[in-house]
Amino acid sequence: MSIRVGVIGVGVMGADHARTLARSVSGAQVTVVTDYDAARADAVALEVSARTVATATELITAPDVDAVVIASHDSAHAEQVALCLDHRRPVLCEKPLAPTLAECVDLVSREEALALANPLVSVGFMRRFHAPYQAMVQEIRSGSVGAPLLVRASHRNVTSYPGGDSASTVTNSAIHEIDITRWLLGSEIVEVSWHAPKPTSLDTSRHDPQILMLRTADGVLTVVDVFVNARYGYDVRCEVVGETGAVSLAPSHVLTVDSSLRSAATYPEDWRPLFADAYRRQLQAWVDALTAEVPSPLASARDGLRATQVAAALIDSMNNDGATIKVDYH
Amino acid sequence: MSIRVGVIGVGVMGADHARTLARSVSGAQVTVVTDYDAARADAVALEVSARTVATATELITAPDVDAVVIASHDSAHAEQVALCLDHRRPVLCEKPLAPTLAECVDLVSREEALALANPLVSVGFMRRFHAPYQAMVQEIRSGSVGAPLLVRASHRNVTSYPGGDSASTVTNSAIHEIDITRWLLGSEIVEVSWHAPKPTSLDTSRHDPQILMLRTADGVLTVVDVFVNARYGYDVRCEVVGETGAVSLAPSHVLTVDSSLRSAATYPEDWRPLFADAYRRQLQAWVDALTAEVPSPLASARDGLRATQVAAALIDSMNNDGATIKVDYH
Amino acid sequence: MSIRVGVIGVGVMGADHARTLARSVSGAQVTVVTDYDAARADAVALEVSARTVATATELITAPDVDAVVIASHDSAHAEQVALCLDHRRPVLCEKPLAPTLAECVDLVSREEALALANPLVSVGFMRRFHAPYQAMVQEIRSGSVGAPLLVRASHRNVTSYPGGDSASTVTNSAIHEIDITRWLLGSEIVEVSWHAPKPTSLDTSRHDPQILMLRTADGVLTVVDVFVNARYGYDVRCEVVGETGAVSLAPSHVLTVDSSLRSAATYPEDWRPLFADAYRRQLQAWVDALTAEVPSPLASARDGLRATQVAAALIDSMNNDGATIKVDYH
Amino acid sequence: MSIRVGVIGVGVMGADHARTLARSVSGAQVTVVTDYDAARADAVALEVSARTVATATELITAPDVDAVVIASHDSAHAEQVALCLDHRRPVLCEKPLAPTLAECVDLVSREEALALANPLVSVGFMRRFHAPYQAMVQEIRSGSVGAPLLVRASHRNVTSYPGGDSASTVTNSAIHEIDITRWLLGSEIVEVSWHAPKPTSLDTSRHDPQILMLRTADGVLTVVDVFVNARYGYDVRCEVVGETGAVSLAPSHVLTVDSSLRSAATYPEDWRPLFADAYRRQLQAWVDALTAEVPSPLASARDGLRATQVAAALIDSMNNDGATIKVDYH
Repeated sequence: MSIRVGVIGVGVMGADHARTLARSVSGAQVTVVTDYDAARADAVALEVSARTVATATELITAPDVDAVVIASHDSAHAEQVALCLDHRRPVLCEKPLAPTLAECVDLVSREEALALANPLVSVGFMRRFHAPYQAMVQEIRSGSVGAPLLVRASHRNVTSYPGGDSASTVTNSAIHEIDITRWLLGSEIVEVSWHAPKPTSLDTSRHDPQILMLRTADGVLTVVDVFVNARYGYDVRCEVVGETGAVSLAPSHVLTVDSSLRSAATYPEDWRPLFADAYRRQLQAWVDALTAEVPSPLASARDGLRATQVAAALIDSMNNDGATIKVDYH
Repeated sequence: MSIRVGVIGVGVMGADHARTLARSVSGAQVTVVTDYDAARADAVALEVSARTVATATELITAPDVDAVVIASHDSAHAEQVALCLDHRRPVLCEKPLAPTLAECVDLVSREEALALANPLVSVGFMRRFHAPYQAMVQEIRSGSVGAPLLVRASHRNVTSYPGGDSASTVTNSAIHEIDITRWLLGSEIVEVSWHAPKPTSLDTSRHDPQILMLRTADGVLTVVDVFVNARYGYDVRCEVVGETGAVSLAPSHVLTVDSSLRSAATYPEDWRPLFADAYRRQLQAWVDALTAEVPSPLASARDGLRATQVAAALIDSMNNDGATIKVDYH
Repeated sequence: MSIRVGVIGVGVMGADHARTLARSVSGAQVTVVTDYDAARADAVALEVSARTVATATELITAPDVDAVVIASHDSAHAEQVALCLDHRRPVLCEKPLAPTLAECVDLVSREEALALANPLVSVGFMRRFHAPYQAMVQEIRSGSVGAPLLVRASHRNVTSYPGGDSASTVTNSAIHEIDITRWLLGSEIVEVSWHAPKPTSLDTSRHDPQILMLRTADGVLTVVDVFVNARYGYDVRCEVVGETGAVSLAPSHVLTVDSSLRSAATYPEDWRPLFADAYRRQLQAWVDALTAEVPSPLASARDGLRATQVAAALIDSMNNDGATIKVDYH
Repeated sequence: MSIRVGVIGVGVMGADHARTLARSVSGAQVTVVTDYDAARADAVALEVSARTVATATELITAPDVDAVVIASHDSAHAEQVALCLDHRRPVLCEKPLAPTLAECVDLVSREEALALANPLVSVGFMRRFHAPYQAMVQEIRSGSVGAPLLVRASHRNVTSYPGGDSASTVTNSAIHEIDITRWLLGSEIVEVSWHAPKPTSLDTSRHDPQILMLRTADGVLTVVDVFVNARYGYDVRCEVVGETGAVSLAPSHVLTVDSSLRSAATYPEDWRPLFADAYRRQLQAWVDALTAEVPSPLASARDGLRATQVAAALIDSMNNDGATIKVDYH
């Protein structure tokens, strides 16, 4: 039997999830959709042969919903995840788990209080399902580059979203780098600092780019540049330097075009072409675990909390002249 | 409702298809499996929650089979496809459609005699669903490189399969190059010739590598080297040179590993890592068309025939000192 | 003491040679320059602190000329080289040694009749001094890719020179591919054929691109595409495929520029940026041999003849529907 | 007339300079060589047809020496450069100009006190003559990537030299990064900090790798990782990220070798293959300026001082828990 999924929030991300579940995931169907914009909900529901309901609560408690995907506004995540926990609904919540640390702590407490064999909450750190990162972690584990010492990463968007600031660059964009660093190295981030390149004049709402330094418990130092107005393209890079070698993500383009005295590859304008397959594989893995009644292999609520804790420490450093800040995990 | 698929032949290729259908394709399930090796059939059936039957005929006529995948030995294709046509079962037949021209012609005649809105036969030229080739055809159609003039391609395997000869290199390996050339250029191959590099001493069963020249009706010349004992890795390359530019498949590796004075990317040992996603997308497209009751977007029986006709002309050239041979499409 | 060089012909190529000799080669000076265009000769002479003379004969017989560089019009090569031989002047003649086979044969006879320990004539096949080709030949000799079986090469110019035709594409452009193939493989070209891709509509003076097949005595087949109106950039590629691996020239660009959704490298507009260092190293090697009174390590008169013989066979094939032609070395 | 050069110190670096001057530079000859190891001096003198003298003083004051190259032990630089100034000998001193700040300050004072139109001292920051860096600075100046904001660089050696420590990594290796950063950006480094990745266990004499942050007066932040025991190869990388794009050094290998399921390029074991041409071009530029009696285009004594001042600030940060340190230019 198929897992019947309800999707809360069908903006760009949620609509993508709904379509992927309906069209490209084995063993799932989308049965219910909701969105504060009813017309948008109707349109997506029609596309995926689902019905709509008016509220998240209605969706979470619907009899034809086995599991929930939350892709609503960040500010609604905490309440909706809590409701899923109350109703024992498995839920895949888009990152961030919740915008505030207090909310994240509360959700983890509630989840852990239930003491379920198969925890209910998964968080959408889809990079863990990006084949190149998976190959990279395998390569590191194989020992071919020796013990990791240093990670260099870049996270570059074409243009920033309206309404953000320097802190939201960390909580919305860099948060993926935080999670993938913990995951690649298999070690907690214990200390961070924030550093300022010259800011672009093309976005006055924030300091951009930023340099983030993340120290993991194993001693490795990760240096990430995050530039959400890089203009040239959506670009994600990562190199892990070990004692005897280094492993890097290869460029992700599929074609080279030679013309006008240039040999060129194309960058995508946003994350979707690059990570579409990671999203699909994440959803398939989530559905597979639900079907098999085994624990979800996705990022957990605690992973979501950890990322938020590290982001908070980075913002603390940002507000304190780049001071080195210990991450507070209590 | 799911499409219930029966899979005939669960060797490497067929077992992969069965697993992909069961685990990674939306709207499909594998209900019946058969193989001349009953133990192998049992093992795969268990994996995908299907039952087994003893014969292809039983499978094709089973009440719980809506559509058939044929991945049996090449020599069985013609009879099994014919049976599918007789029983009006949509069928995805692995390439080649049939080993002999006469069989292919017969199957196309039978299919066309049925005059169905949605033809029953699809052929597994999965490269048409490989995202880089799809991007390449879009790039060509965009005009960014001008009118195509010349195609250079390479098809390289690590080691040849036992039991083959120079002709089977064409009918089993180069046949993918034949199909993708027609598809990329949107033009029939009308004339071919076969040329001999120095043969490797590591395979005395055939002349290897080979150079194939394919002239399409649009005047474009495609030059392919096929080397089924290339040893260094499984490698597929393609460059289309146009009047104002050129477009090439980018290398497909996802990582770069630096160690021991080398910066290296890994080649796969066979086609599966490279084309796994193309196989999945091909199966999804096939299932989607069946579900929507629209014509299959896969290669047709006539496409299968065309490829076999071109292969026959190449073998004719091989046997006639590399003479230029017109392709006989009658 | 410096080698005093006279330069005959100071168009683009000859002026480059004069400047390189004067500024970047150790142990050489340019003492005399001549050109049919006296103003051009004066300008270059001024640049390199040389004097001018009115005629090639005057230059070759000048008391302050130890050695001669010929970069005059192709049609003047034979007579000027012969004069150098008569006067025992070491000479570096730009390719081709001479435009006709008869002239080349005559020059080789004259040279060989002198039976000098250090032959006088060198021919400017500068690719032999291009570091990547030198690394490639070392790699082949090391055995790392096994015995060579197949070579794939591309020779692409931005636009053709005015006044050429299909034959001159072979004698002026492809001739470099002919020489480098012989040199890389260490084996004579014994058989050739010429093949026609769809011609570009952007140059009606010739058939462009062309495919050339060169069979060397060792059995290796070299397939070269030559496209002198490729438009996209000046591009030279070469891959040698052996029994256990393959070695390719890496792309030669020094920068990658990311902008406007493109990651791009720049192609040069002509051969000069790519081969400037090869020209310098060729001149230095020539001067060094003259200084040390040892045989020139450059291509010899016989190498120049060989290339012209192969070019003639290719033109023969071109005029005979792509027939396979044995190279006549008598 | 040739510039007659005396070379002080003919270890690896000095012998390379002597050979390059003698064999590959126009307008120069090596007339005198000295080394504390007389046998080594004799051997190199023989190679380049020079004579030897017993002491640096003898060389600097020799009547047949127009200009001096200093490639002696770092600790001898200051005294030898001072002697060149006293005797008005143009001198190219290998980096560092001198190991201590006080010595550098003294040499700059002496040089500037002479108030010569053509200052005598040049410092061997040869990367300024590396064609890829020159192309990069042109690309930046062209505006194609917008105003620079951030530089990311890597400096990786195979193994460290014996006898060094964490400070010498900065003064001997990272000093090239310091100079090239100033030169690329055309802006002084005003503030630095030092950061520690996990140290490799393979070199207990120093903390390795290191992260260096260099803030230039223009606000740009440069982040360099220096890893002198990287093992995998000699590797130098640089990316300048601007407001609208980014420009990077392309990989410098000339071949790709496919074998054993790997597509690999080779790293050099040390700097020589990578920078040989930069050294040659630097020497040629130096000789050309001497010949033309114009100011040297090489790094000046003041450039040498600047680099040492920045290095001192970095070591200060290293010794103060990574504190941000203003560079003291007084």
